[in-house]
Amino acid sequence: MSAPHDHASASTLSVEALTRLLETIFLRHGTSAEVARSLATNCASAERDGAHSHGVFRIPGYVSTLNSGWVNGKSVPKVEDVASGFVRVDADNGYAQPALAAARPLLVEKARSAGIAVLAIRNSHHFAALWPDVEPFAEEGLVALSVVNSMTCVVPHGADRPLFGTNPIAFAAPRADGAPIVFDLATSAIAHGDVQIAARKGEKLPVGTGVDSLGQPTCDPKAILEGGALLPFGGHKGSALSMMVELLAAALTGGNFSFEFDWKNHPGAKSPWTGQLLIVIDPSKSAGQSFAERSQELVRQMHGVGLKRLPGDRRHLQRAKSLANGIVLDEQTLAQLRELAGE
Amino acid sequence: MSAPHDHASASTLSVEALTRLLETIFLRHGTSAEVARSLATNCASAERDGAHSHGVFRIPGYVSTLNSGWVNGKSVPKVEDVASGFVRVDADNGYAQPALAAARPLLVEKARSAGIAVLAIRNSHHFAALWPDVEPFAEEGLVALSVVNSMTCVVPHGADRPLFGTNPIAFAAPRADGAPIVFDLATSAIAHGDVQIAARKGEKLPVGTGVDSLGQPTCDPKAILEGGALLPFGGHKGSALSMMVELLAAALTGGNFSFEFDWKNHPGAKSPWTGQLLIVIDPSKSAGQSFAERSQELVRQMHGVGLKRLPGDRRHLQRAKSLANGIVLDEQTLAQLRELAGE
Repeated sequence: MSAPHDHASASTLSVEALTRLLETIFLRHGTSAEVARSLATNCASAERDGAHSHGVFRIPGYVSTLNSGWVNGKSVPKVEDVASGFVRVDADNGYAQPALAAARPLLVEKARSAGIAVLAIRNSHHFAALWPDVEPFAEEGLVALSVVNSMTCVVPHGADRPLFGTNPIAFAAPRADGAPIVFDLATSAIAHGDVQIAARKGEKLPVGTGVDSLGQPTCDPKAILEGGALLPFGGHKGSALSMMVELLAAALTGGNFSFEFDWKNHPGAKSPWTGQLLIVIDPSKSAGQSFAERSQELVRQMHGVGLKRLPGDRRHLQRAKSLANGIVLDEQTLAQLRELAGE
Repeated sequence: MSAPHDHASASTLSVEALTRLLETIFLRHGTSAEVARSLATNCASAERDGAHSHGVFRIPGYVSTLNSGWVNGKSVPKVEDVASGFVRVDADNGYAQPALAAARPLLVEKARSAGIAVLAIRNSHHFAALWPDVEPFAEEGLVALSVVNSMTCVVPHGADRPLFGTNPIAFAAPRADGAPIVFDLATSAIAHGDVQIAARKGEKLPVGTGVDSLGQPTCDPKAILEGGALLPFGGHKGSALSMMVELLAAALTGGNFSFEFDWKNHPGAKSPWTGQLLIVIDPSKSAGQSFAERSQELVRQMHGVGLKRLPGDRRHLQRAKSLANGIVLDEQTLAQLRELAGE
């Protein structure tokens, strides 16, 4: 989905100014300073990179979730050092990002010492893009893989009814002469945020992305949102990967499966209460040439066979633009954000 | 692809008898006893489970590769204990299976102690299915993920020419009341072995699986094999995963990328000379209920939404049949195997 900010009248904010505005919103809706900083930085980064489905578009959802009492905005994550390569965090029914921030130093220390380490986050909510969780590891020379399960909205391949979440997989790896190689892909045929944006804009979705409430194929995003469901990407293969995400992000962390939580007593709740797994590898333990030189060689060869754009390239272009010229928001969106901030 | 053994005249062998026959073939073509045992067990397991594209169908390829001098049939893998969660193996230009067998005890010990461990195999050839490499870990209560890169035959999404291999991902997890949950998926739209089988049988392939030598879409397996190429599964998502496999199986191990080896001086060589990565996690380090109980619950829920068959179910049904009644081979195939065994 491209920029939804196509109104005639628009305003420009610096990344810092947007982050501060979002921080104020979070604080005003009952989060601690740490949680506000973590979520605001994450959400502003998505907007900065043009990842609109996880940018300020998500703010009303965060606010209604906080207002509903479904999530703990003042969560204090409990980090447990389980083994030389294993860190566990109980996110205290709060968002996953502050839990990751709390466990991150220990995780990096273990990855560098053991060569690989895993972070199992449970009792957590994830309402954001997944790439911001892995990219910083690659910026430190580490390879990172993360999976998070979400909420029932995807029909397993060969089944009749939805069970899995959109269950994204994100990966980041350093390279010698450029920004890290990063991807973040929903194992559903389309990300849930993109369905919401298409519904709002009245656009149709590609064939094969979803079914309506009767289980019939549909290209209407509203039919998907109103009792319908998504399909996995790539048939049985995407479905197998989605199943793997449930096993790693929920069964392995002690978190909920995508179908296990019940938020009906919390009207307005939007963020799934599940788990997240991160695996971090120190490639300096590998044999041969430096990993970053090797990944650079792969990129060079990918361009050599005619690839114009790497995964993540579009985000980096938009990031450079946003950092130089600021982030453009339409007046309506900005007014809504200011109102939520009490300004 | 279903059973290629549809000739009128067929013979039945026990799994043990087939394994011994294959062992004899490997020994007769210059492997050590260890390598023969490892490859014969692997190949007979695939045939036993009905995974025909990686069963005895592969034997002529193994033989021509060994005859060509491309692979070291008497390889002695060198296992290096790099860190508390990191094991490296130089496969000595031999097959990956004996390298995994040599490193396996140390890998399991590290996974149980550190909570997670990684095995980086380089200088290795992989010509088999990947699920036999991960399934045994799940049978011991561990969760395992493996990736292996292969040889240039897949066009990255958005590129013009092939670069990636079929680059499979395999995953295995234990469950309480049944065989482990196991999948093994090529990140190409179809496995290379299945293209070869379709070509041999004169069958067409589904739309979207490959291109001909001019880069045009084709459903003809021969056009793919003769100068054409495969496409990734699931468009840009499968392509991103295939790129990840190159980074993990080659860049991170010190092995070759799928495009880096040159076998033109070894006519008859078939097995790609690359690398393989395995990640093994001990789920007993996780919080909450036992992992196996939780994965069993996921399976129960998957059946609850109408899923008839789990990934791996078909293999297990065929396995039970083969163990009870033996493996059926057509006379022509059996005669060829016996000839290769010098019988």
